[in-house]
Amino acid sequence: MNHKMILKSLGSVLCIEAVCMVPSLLVSIIYCQGDTSSFLLTIAILLLLGLGLRSVKTETTTIYARDGFAIVALGWLLVSLFGALPFLISGAVPSVIDALFESASAFSTTGASIIREIEGIPKGIVFWRSSAHWMGGMGVLVMMIAILPSVKASTLHIMKAESPGPAPGKFVPKIKETAKILYIIYIVMTAVQVIFLLAGGMPLYDSLIHAFGTASTGGFSSRNASVGAYGSVYIETVITVFMLLFGINFSLYYALLKGNMKSLFRDEELRFFLGTVLVASLLIVINTYGSVFQSIGESIRYTSFQVSSVITTTGYATADFTLWPTFSQGLLVILMFMGASAGSTAGGLKCIRILLLFKIVKREVIKIIHPRSVQTVKINGRIVDEEILYGVLTFFFAYIAVFTISIAFVLLDNKDLLSSSTAVVACLSNIGPGLGIVGPAGNFADFSLISKAVLTLCMIIGRLEIYPILLLFAPTFWKRVNI
Amino acid sequence: MNHKMILKSLGSVLCIEAVCMVPSLLVSIIYCQGDTSSFLLTIAILLLLGLGLRSVKTETTTIYARDGFAIVALGWLLVSLFGALPFLISGAVPSVIDALFESASAFSTTGASIIREIEGIPKGIVFWRSSAHWMGGMGVLVMMIAILPSVKASTLHIMKAESPGPAPGKFVPKIKETAKILYIIYIVMTAVQVIFLLAGGMPLYDSLIHAFGTASTGGFSSRNASVGAYGSVYIETVITVFMLLFGINFSLYYALLKGNMKSLFRDEELRFFLGTVLVASLLIVINTYGSVFQSIGESIRYTSFQVSSVITTTGYATADFTLWPTFSQGLLVILMFMGASAGSTAGGLKCIRILLLFKIVKREVIKIIHPRSVQTVKINGRIVDEEILYGVLTFFFAYIAVFTISIAFVLLDNKDLLSSSTAVVACLSNIGPGLGIVGPAGNFADFSLISKAVLTLCMIIGRLEIYPILLLFAPTFWKRVNI
Repeated sequence: MNHKMILKSLGSVLCIEAVCMVPSLLVSIIYCQGDTSSFLLTIAILLLLGLGLRSVKTETTTIYARDGFAIVALGWLLVSLFGALPFLISGAVPSVIDALFESASAFSTTGASIIREIEGIPKGIVFWRSSAHWMGGMGVLVMMIAILPSVKASTLHIMKAESPGPAPGKFVPKIKETAKILYIIYIVMTAVQVIFLLAGGMPLYDSLIHAFGTASTGGFSSRNASVGAYGSVYIETVITVFMLLFGINFSLYYALLKGNMKSLFRDEELRFFLGTVLVASLLIVINTYGSVFQSIGESIRYTSFQVSSVITTTGYATADFTLWPTFSQGLLVILMFMGASAGSTAGGLKCIRILLLFKIVKREVIKIIHPRSVQTVKINGRIVDEEILYGVLTFFFAYIAVFTISIAFVLLDNKDLLSSSTAVVACLSNIGPGLGIVGPAGNFADFSLISKAVLTLCMIIGRLEIYPILLLFAPTFWKRVNI
Repeated sequence: MNHKMILKSLGSVLCIEAVCMVPSLLVSIIYCQGDTSSFLLTIAILLLLGLGLRSVKTETTTIYARDGFAIVALGWLLVSLFGALPFLISGAVPSVIDALFESASAFSTTGASIIREIEGIPKGIVFWRSSAHWMGGMGVLVMMIAILPSVKASTLHIMKAESPGPAPGKFVPKIKETAKILYIIYIVMTAVQVIFLLAGGMPLYDSLIHAFGTASTGGFSSRNASVGAYGSVYIETVITVFMLLFGINFSLYYALLKGNMKSLFRDEELRFFLGTVLVASLLIVINTYGSVFQSIGESIRYTSFQVSSVITTTGYATADFTLWPTFSQGLLVILMFMGASAGSTAGGLKCIRILLLFKIVKREVIKIIHPRSVQTVKINGRIVDEEILYGVLTFFFAYIAVFTISIAFVLLDNKDLLSSSTAVVACLSNIGPGLGIVGPAGNFADFSLISKAVLTLCMIIGRLEIYPILLLFAPTFWKRVNI
């Protein structure tokens, strides 16, 4: 293991975090609500530590897969840890574990909160929370790869470890260029959403907060009632559309830029994703119309927003879906596990994995009927490598295993099973709200320290798709031998 | 596909069902509660149809894998269908879907009931319900293979399709001998349990009912309050021990008979199964002592019974665990998914699969650390074939997928999420009681026709481990071509 290179990279990550905190510092200066010093102090600590680590001399810049995983896992833990400082120092969140929960929730784009009254928190702090969303959405380390000059080809391992999906790859031969393209698409789309929100009469500050929350599929709002607070069909529509747009694999946008319209329309994952949104919305409209909503228009308005919010793992709310019929609630929970597309900013299992899993079962059935025939699994007309299929199957079990084990810990609080289990999936799939006491009208404040710690870990485990964090628990991971 | 051989086999199955109904007929004659004619009529129908189908002339007795699956799937559907007749004709269960639910629940060894007052049902009918448990436990088709003279070597496919576990095999070269050995062990162990129960002062009728329910890990009782009705520590202990014994892979008993003590003690699945029972019991004792139970002895008594009942998917109850702290309830739900050993009469995913799944994840982690090393997964010191691992991974997803899709249907009743989802796992894993309204003190009577139909299907899907029933839905399955 290349320890020095890991330390050096972690230093870069901390420096980037310091730079990303500057806009929040400016906001705190503008609004002057007493949170400025907390940013100044945090930035000083980050730069001191970051520059110190960056000055480590390395013999070789070559890194192996496990170094990449270590950088990503430790990088995310550090970023969340230091990201908690402004909450803590400003006094906005007085408890250490609560501040860490809020910070990890922000970076992992979960959007679960322990703050009961967000409108009473200084605007700089709220802005920092949403900035962290935006950084975490596309990836802190992808950002590092995109902007730092010293990046080598071997950083592919870092990119793979941080990017969601069964087989994250490069658009262009150079990994640095891929990272840059990703961030350019991300910035432009976020900017376009800000313009649309401004056009609807939303103030600039609110527009930035909600564009950050949408782009990262995070879901933190500056209002207690989330997006529902604006009561505007226009704003809800803009956010619905952008949530869906940010739930699409960014490689499709790159293909579109290259003029490859075909790959967009024939993409099976995209069709599966949008098809699921359509079918789920339709079913919930039928289920809620007449029981919860008195007009079909109202039902479509709230249902389509909520389905898009949940499947993209954003977690914004315009209605309290814990009051909907249980069929609708059940469908939303299924969508919580599913998530949107690989290569997007969304969490969850990802549509492509679900699609592949069903294709694998179908193949098993065909194999029993025709034992001697050779069957392959295809996506977009291309055969999927057996190794990838094996990885997808294993990932599915690992996800459910993490989910199950985490529930056992959270249940020690003796809260009801529904709240406890949906709290875990809401964190693991990076959504935010669940059902019961953690529904859109509730929050995570009432959980014990142990539960909050477990849920915090779930958020990071979910964002990094399990393995980077799992590796940290493997004793062999820490041995010095390079194979 | 060898259609004629399939029909012939189905005929044999119906004849066996007729013969197995004779003891219930005798019970009905002894107690004289007006249910005798329902048995006479059903036996007549079964023999007429069964002998008719058996007389089909076949050109070849060779059957392929898919024929085996078809015989098992259709055999189970038919047996459940005709097994419902006594309930229906006697008037004990007046609705068709309810009678089918009760019959499928009996054969699949689920033990979920729609009968509110079992003590008001004729004793012959109750005896039939428990006889069906016992038949279904080891397998209706395994019985056919064991007793019919015309059985050929190719029946291995039937045995594989009906027997639970990732790689069901033969103890001895001849499949017929294996089936016989299985049934001899099953009969002897059931008889020993009856003797133990009689020794505790339980009447013969009750002893037979509860031995059938234990041996098959089914869980139907002749009392409304299940095993709790006897209030006897001795009886509870006997049943706890036998539930665990019937949750062990029968191949280990065969090895024991052959004097191979070592294979018993080194068996990883057995250790994992008993270890889980011990750890789960300990955790629930700690969790319930002081809150639910006032003495540690009481806590151990009720906890060990319930843990053994749930993990072996029996479903007997001596306490209403829906009133326990949610941590205890959550652990029980996890055990519901897990189930006991492969090659036992228990349902669920089976311990060996869970063990293999964790080993697969561990290997994935090691693979990331040492990408160039070759890692194998071993059980009992032997390398497990990659094909089996792939099958286990796929089965896990298929199980969760059936679970999820079924919940969506059941939720249309708008019952609470906890009751609905545990109703599905209680049926799919062949347990019986779940949580909420389907807890040990509740029953399945309040569900709609659609839900009952879905849950009935879940019971058979779970008992046959998904694929045989899934195959029936595949269009290519019904084509005549043999490959």
